[in-house]
Amino acid sequence: MKRIRTTEVGSHIGERVRIAGWLQSLRQLGGVSFLVIRDGWGTIQAVAEAEAELATLQQQEAGVESVVSVEGLVVSMPQAPGGVELHDLRIEVITPVAEVPVVPLNKPKLSANITTLLDHAVVTNRHPARRAILRLGAGAMASFRATLSAKGFTEIQTPKIVAAATESGANVFQLDYFGRSAYLAQSPQFYKQILVGVYERVFEVGPVFRAEPHDTTRHINEYVSLDAEFGFIENHFTVMAVLRDVIADILKTFSESYTPELNLLRVQMPIVPSEIPHIHFSDAQEWIFQRHRIDVRGEPDLSPQDERWLGEWAQQEFGSDFLFVTGYPMRKRPFYTHPDPARPEFSNSFDLLFRGTELVTGGQRLHRYADYLAALENAHLPMEPFESYLEAFRYGMPPHGGFAIGLERLLMQLTGVPNIRLATTFPRDLARLTP
Amino acid sequence: MKRIRTTEVGSHIGERVRIAGWLQSLRQLGGVSFLVIRDGWGTIQAVAEAEAELATLQQQEAGVESVVSVEGLVVSMPQAPGGVELHDLRIEVITPVAEVPVVPLNKPKLSANITTLLDHAVVTNRHPARRAILRLGAGAMASFRATLSAKGFTEIQTPKIVAAATESGANVFQLDYFGRSAYLAQSPQFYKQILVGVYERVFEVGPVFRAEPHDTTRHINEYVSLDAEFGFIENHFTVMAVLRDVIADILKTFSESYTPELNLLRVQMPIVPSEIPHIHFSDAQEWIFQRHRIDVRGEPDLSPQDERWLGEWAQQEFGSDFLFVTGYPMRKRPFYTHPDPARPEFSNSFDLLFRGTELVTGGQRLHRYADYLAALENAHLPMEPFESYLEAFRYGMPPHGGFAIGLERLLMQLTGVPNIRLATTFPRDLARLTP
Repeated sequence: MKRIRTTEVGSHIGERVRIAGWLQSLRQLGGVSFLVIRDGWGTIQAVAEAEAELATLQQQEAGVESVVSVEGLVVSMPQAPGGVELHDLRIEVITPVAEVPVVPLNKPKLSANITTLLDHAVVTNRHPARRAILRLGAGAMASFRATLSAKGFTEIQTPKIVAAATESGANVFQLDYFGRSAYLAQSPQFYKQILVGVYERVFEVGPVFRAEPHDTTRHINEYVSLDAEFGFIENHFTVMAVLRDVIADILKTFSESYTPELNLLRVQMPIVPSEIPHIHFSDAQEWIFQRHRIDVRGEPDLSPQDERWLGEWAQQEFGSDFLFVTGYPMRKRPFYTHPDPARPEFSNSFDLLFRGTELVTGGQRLHRYADYLAALENAHLPMEPFESYLEAFRYGMPPHGGFAIGLERLLMQLTGVPNIRLATTFPRDLARLTP
Repeated sequence: MKRIRTTEVGSHIGERVRIAGWLQSLRQLGGVSFLVIRDGWGTIQAVAEAEAELATLQQQEAGVESVVSVEGLVVSMPQAPGGVELHDLRIEVITPVAEVPVVPLNKPKLSANITTLLDHAVVTNRHPARRAILRLGAGAMASFRATLSAKGFTEIQTPKIVAAATESGANVFQLDYFGRSAYLAQSPQFYKQILVGVYERVFEVGPVFRAEPHDTTRHINEYVSLDAEFGFIENHFTVMAVLRDVIADILKTFSESYTPELNLLRVQMPIVPSEIPHIHFSDAQEWIFQRHRIDVRGEPDLSPQDERWLGEWAQQEFGSDFLFVTGYPMRKRPFYTHPDPARPEFSNSFDLLFRGTELVTGGQRLHRYADYLAALENAHLPMEPFESYLEAFRYGMPPHGGFAIGLERLLMQLTGVPNIRLATTFPRDLARLTP
């Protein structure tokens, strides 16, 4: 009999079907046995009323996590999870498992400390709640690509092994490249800008590497970056408009196609206004002073507390979970940042705050060769490591800009998990290189 | 006036439109000037009959590769490239460029040696022929994902920094991970198998790193791997059937949506039969002996010459550009390869030959924990570096398998460029780390 998925069983009431997957749990209750079978898409309950139906499991000493094939009659059962059950079972053991996992996978909550959870991620990722977060990640990537492809963006894949550090030279991983020193790319920033010269509009979904020696709940050392960059913009507001659509579409994708995951994770879906409100950095500082009587005016950056206050304000004032802060001071932004022509101490850049925490950074970049030469000199950076990058600007680049979304951070903030490692399939941090 | 793309001009005959892009060429011919403007999607010819129309270019000393905006009247002109031209121009210079690129970008062919071409890839990638190859790469990635998503595969992103070498310990790049040694992943093999335990069906598009000290036309040290892996298979033939659909869909995507690129590159599109013919490794050797009188029977692998002969045979016998060779000897395959139950010296693995050259490798993997213990012992490999990997098998894995397509190799073989570096945006090889 052809196997169907657990999620398809509901449309076969009254028929015999065959499913296959992992034996998530097996409980006996007054002579009746309740099995939960998990496959790649969901779970289904199977009920054995006769001891003989479990004979194959017993003969092969197959316990939880055994891989099994179960044939049975589909019965409507409103009180069962999912509304259907399998009865009158024929069970075949595909791969018997006798050992019990370190962390039980068949409780609604994974009750283990985070170290145990991550040490055994190979197995704990099978838990429906873990799996749901990771699957949202797949949905976010697909939505990101779909939105940008529809807007004429071309997908790129840029080198991760690079000759020079991308932005600052600090916090890069160094490797031995056939006897020479090389580095892991901190971001595709330079390459995505260069490729604006080829395709005008580009995006990349790929790993980035940060050797930041931070042990916080918000940092990992390898993560997935959703990068976009495009030319012929007016200024950073053109970039913000595209980012708004990207974010709105990701949330729409979740609402439309990831309901089971959202329900399981009890995600409170945010609201994206058709235009996300924005406030200039200096106005934000002024407002904080007026409203909270803390004078942060003149500080080069916003503190986490500042961001939380601004998030509350966006919620109260505009009913928006999102807020753009624009015009961060030039001195805190990387050398390729485009200044505000009217107020050159401020930049044509932005952060997108989501519920009072930074989620995305972006902005307009310099596009004139002469401006790059001046900016590098200004930053006391040598020209030589940037020679290829600069070549793009020597031969004509349009006004352009872009943004980068950290995938795991998006998932963390959306699902409310307390640690970014819990929004990562196999996290890398100061101490963790495995699994 | 709102800007339109060069590819949209044809549907605006008789109207004034505005385009923007790079000044690819500027020729004077008997008082008339012919400009070719290239944007992210194509090129268009603009004709200036009055000297005054070029005044802005001259004032700003804007030569080829300058970024310009051109407003003009769309005129049907069958002998013009693309069938339309812009007349009565209003040119605005966005970014003037005075310097001429090292390699001319406005000849039909890029006439430079490969070193120059790659040294200046930042600019030479702008050439329509280079750009076309790279854009096919984007199409292949999108098609790969679409086909597998439709089959219920979940996209994964696995760590590229790993604690142990994936397959053999040889040919890995080593890096300094906060004072410890770590490595760059040679493939997502272990992780994609582990995640079959979570999602059943997974795919990944991402970089892989091979520290192979080969300086050949077919090797680069960082490339994009299109990986798939899935569970509940019968054997390697289940995997081959999915691969067939993936390949057929990529070619269909090219035919349907990349006609300009295929024409420009003069690609001869291959034929994928509804079932790709297959031959067992030992039968292939026997056939070579019978047909070509070279006795390769007993050799552990096929030589390039063997593969070419087999490719010719597939073409003549089945009219197919593709051929599966199955059942390679176990001793040449990695330790996780599943043997043929009937003839355990042969494996349930395959290579897909495309026009007589290996394009894809795949097969069925071991899925029983005990088989892994035996295989590692057999290969004289220690267990410790594989502890997390083995944990997946301790807790139940279904029969599974998969394959990996090298993106750049696919593009190279399809377009017939003589060197894989020419199918790579920014190649990494023994000598090349930049751009």
